[in-house]
This record gives sequence, structure tokens and C-alpha cells, in this order.
Amino acid sequence: MKKIGIFPGSFDPVTNGHIDIIKRGVKLFDKVIIAILLNPAKTFMFNLDERVDLLKNSLQDISNIEIDSFDGLLVDYAAKRNAKAILRGMRAVSDFEYEFQMTLMNRKLNKNIETVFLMTDMQWIFTSSSMIKEAASFGGDINGMVPSVVEKKIKEKLGFS
Amino acid sequence: MKKIGIFPGSFDPVTNGHIDIIKRGVKLFDKVIIAILLNPAKTFMFNLDERVDLLKNSLQDISNIEIDSFDGLLVDYAAKRNAKAILRGMRAVSDFEYEFQMTLMNRKLNKNIETVFLMTDMQWIFTSSSMIKEAASFGGDINGMVPSVVEKKIKEKLGFS
Amino acid sequence: MKKIGIFPGSFDPVTNGHIDIIKRGVKLFDKVIIAILLNPAKTFMFNLDERVDLLKNSLQDISNIEIDSFDGLLVDYAAKRNAKAILRGMRAVSDFEYEFQMTLMNRKLNKNIETVFLMTDMQWIFTSSSMIKEAASFGGDINGMVPSVVEKKIKEKLGFS
Amino acid sequence: MKKIGIFPGSFDPVTNGHIDIIKRGVKLFDKVIIAILLNPAKTFMFNLDERVDLLKNSLQDISNIEIDSFDGLLVDYAAKRNAKAILRGMRAVSDFEYEFQMTLMNRKLNKNIETVFLMTDMQWIFTSSSMIKEAASFGGDINGMVPSVVEKKIKEKLGFS
Amino acid sequence: MKKIGIFPGSFDPVTNGHIDIIKRGVKLFDKVIIAILLNPAKTFMFNLDERVDLLKNSLQDISNIEIDSFDGLLVDYAAKRNAKAILRGMRAVSDFEYEFQMTLMNRKLNKNIETVFLMTDMQWIFTSSSMIKEAASFGGDINGMVPSVVEKKIKEKLGFS
Amino acid sequence: MKKIGIFPGSFDPVTNGHIDIIKRGVKLFDKVIIAILLNPAKTFMFNLDERVDLLKNSLQDISNIEIDSFDGLLVDYAAKRNAKAILRGMRAVSDFEYEFQMTLMNRKLNKNIETVFLMTDMQWIFTSSSMIKEAASFGGDINGMVPSVVEKKIKEKLGFS
Repeated sequence: MKKIGIFPGSFDPVTNGHIDIIKRGVKLFDKVIIAILLNPAKTFMFNLDERVDLLKNSLQDISNIEIDSFDGLLVDYAAKRNAKAILRGMRAVSDFEYEFQMTLMNRKLNKNIETVFLMTDMQWIFTSSSMIKEAASFGGDINGMVPSVVEKKIKEKLGFS
Repeated sequence: MKKIGIFPGSFDPVTNGHIDIIKRGVKLFDKVIIAILLNPAKTFMFNLDERVDLLKNSLQDISNIEIDSFDGLLVDYAAKRNAKAILRGMRAVSDFEYEFQMTLMNRKLNKNIETVFLMTDMQWIFTSSSMIKEAASFGGDINGMVPSVVEKKIKEKLGFS
Repeated sequence: MKKIGIFPGSFDPVTNGHIDIIKRGVKLFDKVIIAILLNPAKTFMFNLDERVDLLKNSLQDISNIEIDSFDGLLVDYAAKRNAKAILRGMRAVSDFEYEFQMTLMNRKLNKNIETVFLMTDMQWIFTSSSMIKEAASFGGDINGMVPSVVEKKIKEKLGFS
Repeated sequence: MKKIGIFPGSFDPVTNGHIDIIKRGVKLFDKVIIAILLNPAKTFMFNLDERVDLLKNSLQDISNIEIDSFDGLLVDYAAKRNAKAILRGMRAVSDFEYEFQMTLMNRKLNKNIETVFLMTDMQWIFTSSSMIKEAASFGGDINGMVPSVVEKKIKEKLGFS
Repeated sequence: MKKIGIFPGSFDPVTNGHIDIIKRGVKLFDKVIIAILLNPAKTFMFNLDERVDLLKNSLQDISNIEIDSFDGLLVDYAAKRNAKAILRGMRAVSDFEYEFQMTLMNRKLNKNIETVFLMTDMQWIFTSSSMIKEAASFGGDINGMVPSVVEKKIKEKLGFS
Repeated sequence: MKKIGIFPGSFDPVTNGHIDIIKRGVKLFDKVIIAILLNPAKTFMFNLDERVDLLKNSLQDISNIEIDSFDGLLVDYAAKRNAKAILRGMRAVSDFEYEFQMTLMNRKLNKNIETVFLMTDMQWIFTSSSMIKEAASFGGDINGMVPSVVEKKIKEKLGFS
């Protein structure tokens, strides 16, 4: 049976750190589903279609992936997709306490779904979608932190292009 | 003189993790006052009366406790109630930095009130009122994380019953 | 060439912990610029002029400092002012992860600007502007946590004077 | 191609926490190699043959595993065995800093070997071979922390049987 | 029934940080037993009799305490002395992971013995017996870190008096 | 007056991570003294003369530095050399608790000596002298972790050249 991993997130927008984890994930799993969590209560820079498009553009040279979205419980979505595991990227500066609390909660909700942690490459330790958007909004150069297509779209959104 | 401990919180709603700490607290103190912090700026799932009712229902087999509410400074309330100490439950995933900052601030505000930390049982490490409400709102099974009366009321609030 | 350090913050209002770091900073740098970050999206207790006034009043016996404000990227402001470094105060209870992520992001944005961490005196470990404002709003005695001129102004704002 | 994971350690002796991680690992990998690190400089309670025997006895109902030993660099051993990843168990009380430093060092030494972190079940958060041996040496009851065959052998070593 | 707390340690020698916790402990417990752990495998600066003497001299103005020593399991000693709890002092710089692992292990070994954490005063955050001995051995001034009788004895041991 | 910083350590041997911090330090201080702590109780791979030689060879293109050794208290040595500050390099994986405890202890021993923390470049996050020596002893490729002269000497010591 194919071993499927779910990589959940907002991806608003995808960063090079996300892509690093996805590339590591496809070495471990037969397929990685990048799953955008729908959250009507949150405000995003990019709408769902835009986020899907940016992911597609950024990941076109990676095989064995699928881009999808979900609402409801992550473990329910994972079970529906026959996934064995949730894939989480960690940076040396992650909020481990939150990660472990989520892992234990998810295991309580569905004991068949594992949570697997991989560590990003050192060069992505400081990247997060929110930090990148904040830097860009002040005119900071985000080249090399996100795929070039994403950089272009962020600048468009911010009226810099 | 009776040694009184204050266990402060929002209790929106009480969880099995809270009850675990209260049971440990009554072994150390002659009386534990469960003190609901009134916070008009915050939005709650349950109003004060409901939270008091859920606490009463959940704690009816524990002696030497009292359920109360307060506004203003916690150390002032503790002093008014002749309490020796503030009781805090810790989980391995707690935000220790915040806890220590609060402890030092409270000690600065009233040096006679101690802060006492107890550790929850391992099985409650992942429970917090907010995580439980979030899981329940997505249809997650929260059985065993809260008393059954609380589980029933959460489902009513969420329109699941 | 004079070695200049930038000490950025909201200073809403300045606390004795800030002053402790500034005093340490002027021993290391030829000049320390206290730089108030302008943030239109945030609500403050004191407006910019009031915050500048409180800083001036509180720091009048310290030489080699300047009080300024900026918007945009901190590293751009630092470069414009010919500063060698950003000065950050750390408390044992700091959020190191956030600090390091910011440091790495700032270094990525401008590799010529260092970030320098100094540790506050133990007695300021628990002080933060937000904790002090919260304590004061409930009638807590904040004497000794902020300069007396600041204490007076906080009480005025809260209608306690 | 079969996906192989390496689970390295001293296993002096195997604990129920180790077994929990191995059971999770075989759900992710086609095969898990339990690899005992040979370390002539360290003193062990059990010699290599005894540790292998205890592992074999404790893991006999788990498929797709192999028990082996190695010296030299872990990543060299992993490469020789065609393993895709090193498997590490984490507890909420782990030394994350050390884990991340090792992960980055191993990645530097061989960029093709991933490190995968899984979280133990809550009930094993407190177990480590050294804590269990220490407790047993003072006559503590270690029932339920290690497989019964291990418990029996520890007592024999300590002269309690 | 009297509520007894056990404060275990090596006390080689007692520091002002220990005394701070003991003073806080006697406000919570009817009696605090200061229990020196006998550890033949460890090398101490002061032998057991000397450590008892230094504790007695340093604590003579504190009521409701007893100085004792024990070997074997801490929880067995606590049970034998009818203690309700083990008392641990925490500093902002404590090794929380180790503390929680010990707490969970002790609870596993005897579920009737609680572990209670109190926070030292800020001024003792940096004191530990080993740091003080190291500083003193290099001629550092340890005045104010330990009781004066302890300071005198350390200097004697080190040949400085 | 010249502002002098002391960068203390064992430097057994110097790594690229040390050199990264020294280069950052000379931008902040008029002079950085690299001070090797003499510790007769510890076993080193390189003796003092060798460590001095490796530092000299590795740092020959950096101005405003001096290589020295000291015994006794670091703050006493710093005062004797008229240094304003102790310079410490931090990695995201540092032991912050230990760093802060040392900082507070040193400040207690001599309040005129500051401790200044700088963060290494991301690429050195995983390097430490001990990890590098351990990897090299197993035949790991340490190229790019230490200066080439150091790499050569480590291989000689280990009998690999």
C-alpha cells in the first residue's frame, strides 16, 4: 500500500522553507499531499485559488505530490485520504511546546495517524510566511526566501510592482 | 490557621486537567478556592453562571473546595481571602517563561503570596480548554478530556446535540 | 568612526528595564539611539509625543543618547543612521526563538548590521510595559518598576490621580 | 526500493519507550534496523550480546525489523545499509538543542540521510534507560517501564533476584 | 494530620538560595525535612557531618524544620517520614526537562507523593553550590551568596583563611 | 579609551564558528582578546602552544585582536586587561540557561564587566569543537567546519594523515 503523508498549512504564501520540507517528505513517503487548511475566521494575503496557484507553480518539478484543501479536523482529513502521517517541518526556532501539544491532541483524536517531524535546512531557519510578508511590506528584499513567482506576487499585492 | 490556596483561571470550561490539579491541591492545602477571573474584554463560550455550574457539577465529590469569582489583581483577591498561595498547574508543554514572569510580578505586588506549581498527570498534558473547544467545533471526540457533563454542554453550545 | 547602537522598541511607556539596558549600552557604544517604532496598526497607551517626553524625562542623566522614531525596516533605519548594531535586552524569561528568528531575518536583509544582546539586571526580569500597564489598570502598585514620572503619567491615563 | 530507517542507540537495556518508537517506525518504513552503537569508552550494565538478546526477546512480535550493531559514523553505517533516514524518538522532555545539533551535523556529513522525529506515547515520557536503572538500583518497582524479560534481567544484575 | 514536605539535596554546602526555598516551604507545610541524599559515588567538598552542621548553623532561626539524611529511593524515604510532598526550588534558569522527568518518575514509583515547585527570589537565580564553589576556588568573593558561616568554612577548605 | 572585549574559551581547537564570532566582535570593539582558559583538570586534544598556534594561523587576516591565556576568575582577568565586556557567541542551539547563570554570576563578581552575546552565522549552528573532534575521530569529513590548517592538525593527531 502506498504510504501517504499530509503536509498541512496556510501557505499564505508558500516559502522556500515549505518547499525544503516537501522535498524531504517525498523521499520518505510515496506521496505527499500539501493540504491547505480553510479558515474563514482568518485574513489572508492570498485567497485559496491564488495559494493553490503559487504552490503549483513552485512545486512543478517535484513528483508524487498533490495540492488539496480541507476544513474540519486534520486527522479526519488524513484518515479520509488514507494517509499514514502528518508531516511537520521544524526549525531550531520552532514552538516545540505547541507542536507537541498538537501531536498529542491529534493522536488522542485518531491514534492511527502519526506525526512526523523533519528539520528544515539551516538556511530556512528564519523564514516564515508572516515574517516574509512583514519584511516585504516595509520594502525589504525577500529574494531567495520564496520562489521568484511568489516574490513577484507579493510585490504586486503590496503595490510595489 | 487554615492554609488556603487559590486556583485561578477562566475555566471556560473546566477540563479533566484542571480537576487533576484541584485534587492534588486539596492534599496540600486545607482548602482550595477555585477562582474564576472576570474579564469583560474576553469572549467566552460559557457565561459566568454556566462556568460555575459546570465546576460545581464536576467537583461535587471533592471536599474542602469553594468556587468563587473575582476581578482586579489576583494577589489582592488572594490577600482578601487569607490565602497563602496561588496554585498553578504545569504541563510539560507549559509556557514557563510566562509563568515565571507572572510569579515574579505577583511576588513584587504582594510578597506574602507564594506561587506553587504542581504537575498534571501525563494523560492531561495535551488538554487545554481552547484546544478542546477547537477540536469539538470540528466534530472531534472530546470524550475523556472533560467531565461528561461538560462534554454534553459543549455539544449543546455547538449545536451538535 | 563613532560606534552607534540602535535600541528599538515601542516604549509604551519606558520601564526601568529599558533604562537598565540603555545604561549598559552606552558603555559599549559611543552613542545609543533609542528608536521608537511607528506602528499605525497598534493601539498605544501613550502617543508618540508622550512617549518621547517620558523617555527624555527618564533619561536626562545619561549622556551619548538620542531619542528618535522610525517607520519601515529597522535595518534600513539603522543603515541610514550609520549604526553598527541593533541592541536588544534579554531577560531570563525572553522569547529566545523569536529573538533569533528576528536576528537572522535582519542579518539576511542587511548583513552589515549586527544584533547585540545584553542581559538586564535581575531585578527587571519580570518587567515589561504590558505587564506593568495591566497591573496598574487593576490598581497594582508599580512603584520601582518605572521612573516616577512614568508612574505618575500611567496613573493619570488610568484616572487614578 | 524498500524504505529503510535506522533506530540507533545504546539500548542498555531496551525500554518500553524504545519499543513504542519502533512500533511507530515500522508503520512509516518498510524496515527498521535497530542499531546498537558500539562505544568501548562507555561502561554498560549489559554487554552487547545481552543487549541483543533483550531486544530480540522484547521485539519478537514486531515484523520488518532487524537488530544490528555498528561503530564509526552513524551516517556511514546508514549509507552502507541503504537507509533513507535516521529515526529518533522524542519525549516532551527531550534535549531538543542536542537533537538539532546532531541532525545538522549528520546532514553536513551526509546530505542524503534524513533524520525523522517521532513522539513517544505520553506514558513513556519519563522513561530512559538510565533513570530506570537508577530507580531499580535503589529497589524501585520498574514494572511496566520495561518488558518483563528486561525487568527480570535488571534484577539479576543488581542481585535482587 | 501534620503536612510534611521533604526538601532533598546534596547541600554541599547550603546556599542562600536553598534557605530562601526552605523559608517559603515552612509557610506552606507544617514541617519541612531537609534531607541530605547520601551518595557514596560522588565526591563532596564537605562530609555529611559538616553539611549537617552548616545547615543547622544557617537555619537556626527557622522553626518547623528537621535536618536528616537518607539513602535509597527518595519516595520511599518520603513515605517512611509520612511526607505529603517533595519540595523543589526552581530558578528561571532551571533544567525543567530534568525536573519534570524526575517528577513523573517519582509519581510512577509512588503515586501518593506530590512534587511541589516554588520559585526562588530573583537574587538567587544564579546561585548553585557548584558555581559558588568554583568561583570561590578562583578567589571570587562569594559574600552574600551563602550564609557567613558557610563562606568561612569554604575559605578554610580552600586554604584561603 | 579603547573598548576591549574578551572572547574566552578552550579553543581545542578553534572552529569556523569561533572565527565568525571574532569577526563580528572586532566590528563592535576596538580590540578583541581571544583568551584561552587554562584548566589543568581537563584533557585536551591540543596543548596550549598548539592551540595558540592554530589560533594565530587561523586569524592572521583579522586586525585588532590578541591571543592570550589566563587562569583564575574570568572577570578578574577582564578587569586586569581593562576590558569592558566578555564576548559570547550564541547558536540557536545554545544552552541559554547556563549562559544566563554565568552572566549573572560574573556580574555579581564584578559589576563593571558586561557580557555581550552575538549570534553566529546560520552555517555554524551545528559546529562545536567537541562535535567536530568526535566526527573526525570516526573518519567524518570536517572540511569547511574548521580552517584547513586545523583540519590538517586534527587528522595528524588522530593518525589519519
